[in-house]
Amino acid sequence: MPRLIALLTDFGTADAYAGVLKGVIASRLPEARMLDLTHGIPPQDVQAGALRLAAAAPFLPPDTVFLAVVDPGVGGERRPLILRSGDRCFVGPDNGLMWHAASSDGPPEAWTPDRPEFWLPTVSATFHGRDLFAPVAAALAAGTPPEALASPVADPVRWSPPPPVWTATGVTGEVLLVDGYGNAITNLRPVDCGDPPDYRVTFAAGGHAVRGPAPYYAAAPKGSPVVVCGSYGTFEIAVNGGNAAAQLGLAVGTPVVVQR
Amino acid sequence: MPRLIALLTDFGTADAYAGVLKGVIASRLPEARMLDLTHGIPPQDVQAGALRLAAAAPFLPPDTVFLAVVDPGVGGERRPLILRSGDRCFVGPDNGLMWHAASSDGPPEAWTPDRPEFWLPTVSATFHGRDLFAPVAAALAAGTPPEALASPVADPVRWSPPPPVWTATGVTGEVLLVDGYGNAITNLRPVDCGDPPDYRVTFAAGGHAVRGPAPYYAAAPKGSPVVVCGSYGTFEIAVNGGNAAAQLGLAVGTPVVVQR
Amino acid sequence: MPRLIALLTDFGTADAYAGVLKGVIASRLPEARMLDLTHGIPPQDVQAGALRLAAAAPFLPPDTVFLAVVDPGVGGERRPLILRSGDRCFVGPDNGLMWHAASSDGPPEAWTPDRPEFWLPTVSATFHGRDLFAPVAAALAAGTPPEALASPVADPVRWSPPPPVWTATGVTGEVLLVDGYGNAITNLRPVDCGDPPDYRVTFAAGGHAVRGPAPYYAAAPKGSPVVVCGSYGTFEIAVNGGNAAAQLGLAVGTPVVVQR
Repeated sequence: MPRLIALLTDFGTADAYAGVLKGVIASRLPEARMLDLTHGIPPQDVQAGALRLAAAAPFLPPDTVFLAVVDPGVGGERRPLILRSGDRCFVGPDNGLMWHAASSDGPPEAWTPDRPEFWLPTVSATFHGRDLFAPVAAALAAGTPPEALASPVADPVRWSPPPPVWTATGVTGEVLLVDGYGNAITNLRPVDCGDPPDYRVTFAAGGHAVRGPAPYYAAAPKGSPVVVCGSYGTFEIAVNGGNAAAQLGLAVGTPVVVQR
Repeated sequence: MPRLIALLTDFGTADAYAGVLKGVIASRLPEARMLDLTHGIPPQDVQAGALRLAAAAPFLPPDTVFLAVVDPGVGGERRPLILRSGDRCFVGPDNGLMWHAASSDGPPEAWTPDRPEFWLPTVSATFHGRDLFAPVAAALAAGTPPEALASPVADPVRWSPPPPVWTATGVTGEVLLVDGYGNAITNLRPVDCGDPPDYRVTFAAGGHAVRGPAPYYAAAPKGSPVVVCGSYGTFEIAVNGGNAAAQLGLAVGTPVVVQR
Repeated sequence: MPRLIALLTDFGTADAYAGVLKGVIASRLPEARMLDLTHGIPPQDVQAGALRLAAAAPFLPPDTVFLAVVDPGVGGERRPLILRSGDRCFVGPDNGLMWHAASSDGPPEAWTPDRPEFWLPTVSATFHGRDLFAPVAAALAAGTPPEALASPVADPVRWSPPPPVWTATGVTGEVLLVDGYGNAITNLRPVDCGDPPDYRVTFAAGGHAVRGPAPYYAAAPKGSPVVVCGSYGTFEIAVNGGNAAAQLGLAVGTPVVVQR
C-alpha cells in the first residue's frame, strides 16, 4: 500500500486546480491514497498555511507525504523543496510554508527536487503544483527516496510563529490565526502562562478583558467571550455560540496579554 | 473491505479541521474508505446539519458509518452518541444532529461511547471530532460493534423537522432550508397537500403566490418563480435560472401556505 | 481496479449534493475510485464548467470517467449524454458542458443514456446527477460500455470558447474566466500572437496596457499587473501578490487586445 498523500493549498474550491493535482497523482500512481487537508488557505498567505499544516500533521499517519502549495513565487527563483522529519515528507515551495510542521522534532533534512525526469514533460511557469510537486509527491508515496529525485540543500527558508514575550506584568502574545468559526487562536500555551497550578489568566485582547481559561466553550453564557485551551494546544478566544473575531475585533496579529 | 465512513461537519473549508478528522481515521484504519458529504453546514447550525444528513443517508451504502460533527456543546455536558438503524451507524454529539437521519425506519438503538481506550490518548475540550468521534468511527468501520466501545442510553436528544399544519383553507408549512442555488426546500410533501390527484397547489410565500407544482425548474419562464417536487421529496420554491431565496425573500422558517 | 471517476459540478459545498453523488457511486461500486475536480462552478454557469473541465481533463488518467453536472435544464427536454474520446468518457447533461473537453482530439462519439434499469429506481425531476448520471458513471467505471446503456445521438450540443480575431493592428481576444486568485485567463495562445520569436506583446484590457509576457508572476513588482503564459496554455493577466480582476476591472468577456 502506498504512503498517504495529504494535500494543503490555497487553490480554493472554485477552480479545478486542486482536482488537477490529484489527477496528476492518480495518473502516476493509480493506487494512490489521497486526503485533502484544506484548499482554503487565503490566497498566497504562506503563514496561514504553515500554521494549519503544523497543527494537522501530528494527527496523520507517521509516514504521510504532505503536498503543500501556497506559492506566490512560482516560476521564479524560489526553489522547490522536500523536507523530511522522521518518516514524514513534505513537498512544496521553499518559502517557509513547510518548516514549522517539519521542525517539531528538530531541524528536518532538506533537498531540492532537480531531476526533471520525475516531473511532467512540460513545466509551466505558473503551476508547479501540477507540473512538479504533484509528480514528486507521487514518487515519494510510491517509495522513491528523496535522494533519488533531489539534491541536498543546507539553507531552506525557515518560518515559525513568533514566541510570546514576558514582561514585568505578564506575558504578551498575539493572535496567530482566526478559524472558520471566528475563534482567535493565539501563540500562548498554558505552560507559558504559569500553568499549572497558576492557570487562571486574564486576556486583554482588542480592548476586551476575558477571565480564563474556561474548561470548554459552553462554560460561558451564550454570546459571551470565553478563553479555552484549544485544539492547537494554545489559548484561543471564542464567543459561546458566536464569532469572536467579528464581535471582539480580533485579527491576525492582535496582541493578547495574559496577567495572572 | 471496511465499511464506508461518510463525514458531515460545520468545519468549513478554510481550516484543516475536516482533513484532520480524515487523518485520524487513516491513522487508525489505513485501508479506510471515506466520503465527504459536506463540511459546509453553517457554523453550529444543528438543524441545517440534521436536514442534510437525513436527505443524504438513504443514498449511501446501507452499512455506512456516518461521522457527523456540528457540536456547539463540545467539552461540556452533552454526551457523545452512537445511533444504529439497520446496518447504518451514526457517530457524533448527542444534540439532535443525527436523530432525524437515524429514525426514518423507527427509533434507532443508542449508545454513548465511554471507553477511552478507543479514543486518542489526549482528548481536548474543543475538538471531540478529532479526539473521540473520528477514532470511534474508525473502530466501527473496522467492524467493532457499538456494544464494545459504548454503553446503552435510553434518552438521546431527538429532533425532527416540524410537520405541516392543516387548517380550514389549506396546509401551512415552512421553509426548512435554503440550498446553495437559493432554492427554498419546504416540509410539504405532495401527499400532505392532497396529491394525487388534486396536486395543483398555490404557494403563498414571502408575499408571493406561485401556482404549482411544475414538472421541472425550466418549465417556468426564465427568471420566474416555480414550485417543484424536489430531490428532498418535498415541495421546493425555485426561480428558473435565478436565486429564489434572494429574489423572493425566503429564509429558513418562512411560512408556506398551500391552498388547492 | 475500476476506472477513476472525476466529478465536476456547481453543487457548492454548503449542501451534501456532491456527497450524495459519491454515495450513489459507492453504493453501486464499493471499490470505486473517485476524485473531486471541483464543486464550485458558479451556479448554472455551463461555460465556466466547460472551461475548467477542458483544462483539467488532460492531466487525469487516460481512461477516466468524468461525471459533470451543471444542469439548469434538469428534468426538461435536454437529453442526458455520454461522450467518448479515446478511452475517456464524459457523463452529464447535453447542454455543451462536456463538448470542449471531449473534442480536443476531434469530434467525440455520443450517446444518450436511455436504459432506466441502470438508473436509480426513482428518478426525480430536479436531481439527475444523483438519480441518473451517477449510476451511469458507476456502470461505465465498472467496465460497462456506453453501447450497453445508451443509444447513439448525432447532434450533441456543442460549445467551445470563442477564438481570437485578427485585425489590422493586432489580435483581439477576451477574458474567458477569472480564477480564485483573480487571475484573468484569456483565449489568446502565444502562437496566436506571433510567438516565437515575436512574443513581446502589449495587452490593453479594461483600459490598462500591460507589456508582456513575463516569465512568471513575481517577475513584476509587487502589486503590479503582469501577463504570463499560464497553466491553461494561454495568456493570463495577473497582479503580482494581488487580485487582477478586482484591481484592473476584468471580468468574463472583457476584450483583450494584443499588439506587437
